[in-house]
Amino acid sequence: MTEIPSSLPAGFRTAGVTAGLKPSGKSDLALVVNDGPDHHAAAVFTSNRVVAAPVVWSRRVVSDGRVDAVVLNSGGANACTGHQGFQDSHRTAEEVASTLGVSAADVIVCSTGLIGELLPMDKVLAAVGPAAAALEVTGHAAAEAILTTDTHAKTAAHTGDGWSVWGMAKGAGMLAPSLATMLVVLVTDAATDVTTLDEALRSATLTTFDRVDSDGCQSTNDTVLLMSSGASGIAVEAPVLTQAVTAVCADLAHQLVADAEGAAHDIAIEVRGAASVDDALEVGRSVARNNLFKCAIFGADPNWGRVLAAVGTTRAAFDPDALDVAMNGVQVCRAGGVGEDRSLVDLSGREVHVLVDLHAGPEVATVWTNDLTHDYVHENSAYST
Amino acid sequence: MTEIPSSLPAGFRTAGVTAGLKPSGKSDLALVVNDGPDHHAAAVFTSNRVVAAPVVWSRRVVSDGRVDAVVLNSGGANACTGHQGFQDSHRTAEEVASTLGVSAADVIVCSTGLIGELLPMDKVLAAVGPAAAALEVTGHAAAEAILTTDTHAKTAAHTGDGWSVWGMAKGAGMLAPSLATMLVVLVTDAATDVTTLDEALRSATLTTFDRVDSDGCQSTNDTVLLMSSGASGIAVEAPVLTQAVTAVCADLAHQLVADAEGAAHDIAIEVRGAASVDDALEVGRSVARNNLFKCAIFGADPNWGRVLAAVGTTRAAFDPDALDVAMNGVQVCRAGGVGEDRSLVDLSGREVHVLVDLHAGPEVATVWTNDLTHDYVHENSAYST
Repeated sequence: MTEIPSSLPAGFRTAGVTAGLKPSGKSDLALVVNDGPDHHAAAVFTSNRVVAAPVVWSRRVVSDGRVDAVVLNSGGANACTGHQGFQDSHRTAEEVASTLGVSAADVIVCSTGLIGELLPMDKVLAAVGPAAAALEVTGHAAAEAILTTDTHAKTAAHTGDGWSVWGMAKGAGMLAPSLATMLVVLVTDAATDVTTLDEALRSATLTTFDRVDSDGCQSTNDTVLLMSSGASGIAVEAPVLTQAVTAVCADLAHQLVADAEGAAHDIAIEVRGAASVDDALEVGRSVARNNLFKCAIFGADPNWGRVLAAVGTTRAAFDPDALDVAMNGVQVCRAGGVGEDRSLVDLSGREVHVLVDLHAGPEVATVWTNDLTHDYVHENSAYST
Repeated sequence: MTEIPSSLPAGFRTAGVTAGLKPSGKSDLALVVNDGPDHHAAAVFTSNRVVAAPVVWSRRVVSDGRVDAVVLNSGGANACTGHQGFQDSHRTAEEVASTLGVSAADVIVCSTGLIGELLPMDKVLAAVGPAAAALEVTGHAAAEAILTTDTHAKTAAHTGDGWSVWGMAKGAGMLAPSLATMLVVLVTDAATDVTTLDEALRSATLTTFDRVDSDGCQSTNDTVLLMSSGASGIAVEAPVLTQAVTAVCADLAHQLVADAEGAAHDIAIEVRGAASVDDALEVGRSVARNNLFKCAIFGADPNWGRVLAAVGTTRAAFDPDALDVAMNGVQVCRAGGVGEDRSLVDLSGREVHVLVDLHAGPEVATVWTNDLTHDYVHENSAYST
């Protein structure tokens, strides 16, 4: 867990207020404002072909590389809401723009919550003014307001020499490759350009959020946004910026796994000896999505046969008689057969490490997932009721 | 549920006995014998690349189209057991062969249970004699002996004019496309040839067992075997035989879904308006494997947004703004947006029908799955302990 930084990178202000979208009465509308001087931005969105209205809107907004503000709401995804849903996202951006004195075409909109319901627009619009009035140079209130079933706010930061990167994230369910409902806003006061920002963000998400697969379900609303103000006045080289953004994304990704809906274990599937990174990822994801394996880990049962059964469904290069599997350091499967005594594996801790060696090449990748628990079933069978 | 037929097709005898492989003390070793005059056989096996020793053995046995007997055990999968595991399957076939006076090269071996443990061969071999002594012209004892977590035996039959097809199946978990652990033995006394048998079996499994996806997990041991004795003396045309075998497979497949581990609902995902059957199947399977959707059905929550989110992850041809979804007859999603009130959907019954219309072509397919329940998690987190 990262300690919440006391202040944001220079040039940014955020707020979190209660619009009344959540039955719980908790805060549910956040605002992030870039006061410049730069207003550069890059974003990646869900690769789901069914996308929510705010994603359709925000893709257009970010396409010119300029973003002045972001408005995010929890308590409703505004997904599968047709033309009216798009109009609502547009209207929200207009309200933020007129309140802040910017253009609606530079306002990103993000929503998260139940799919298939229109937002109560009167409540959303009425909260924009109070949010603007509450803007401050810390990020905690905003990070709180975007939560759904998350149990706590998630922020992370990386400090450079006179500049920094800060990020906040929500998303405790629907995590999957190619992002999740997962909303992430990253801000930096480094002086850089849009192309460098875009490359840094894509590189960072590829090895962090894209390798988290909590429950194999891909959201309609995923958005990861990176904005730069240049307010530090310090020009940061591309590799240095990429490294900093990756560190913040990795920290947030790990926090998402650690707070996934109903999870009792965080599981790292490390695949070694792959002929390609794609092979390693395919194997890692196949294990990460195997419900029988995930139930076994919940039951603290080192059932490595279910790992092999999952590996066997992939197209990755391997010889079944060469597969090795270790669980928390105990090599339970050697050369495709029985290895050390499975009873030696201790699965009582929160973190579980599964090592699959394909013995087919030099490539590696690690995919993070969670176990499948009674609480996951409970939370997701009662979510909308 | 099909009533258990009083007698098998002519030329077949079966038995089920207790070898002592199951801690419960229930019967766990079955024998199916074809007394001829024909000994034709065809089989389909798991497409998992990690296959159990009995599958490796049985693929060889069936390759010449002749099978005289099948020995099946529950209480141990003999999977991921290396060279010793293969030797054990071979040894079991030898024991059956010498007991029955046939060739081991004509004896199929099937195993189901925990992966990664060697079978207690003394118990297996000691049970072969008693099984041979117990052979009878009914199938119930055999159908009982192959069960694992199934709650009851599954058999089905189709009666033609002077000939019939009978089948038994087990498999309440690990069901997935390209078969499951799922062991199925089908027998007929129709007079036919190996090529016709093989075509009938492949055609039948393609639209039945291959369209069941209980939990997305694919087994290492799946075997579906069809044998003909020709003992009725009645030559049956290929289309008629295919239809009969398909009817028996469909009946058994539905029984597997209805008895899937921990399931509270049987869910038919019917996809219409697809550009191709492959598209329809990809969409159906994507919905069938979506844990969030499956949890929602368990909670009797008609959360159609999760259906759309699953459809959106496929490569099938469709326009997101044209998608229609009906649940148990209520069109909850129309043209990608909100349709009828979701509260009108009654999910209190065991069977759930989800209709997805892609409006992209004339093709259809139905995939069967189950909901994701507390009991599924419980059974699969405690299975090996």
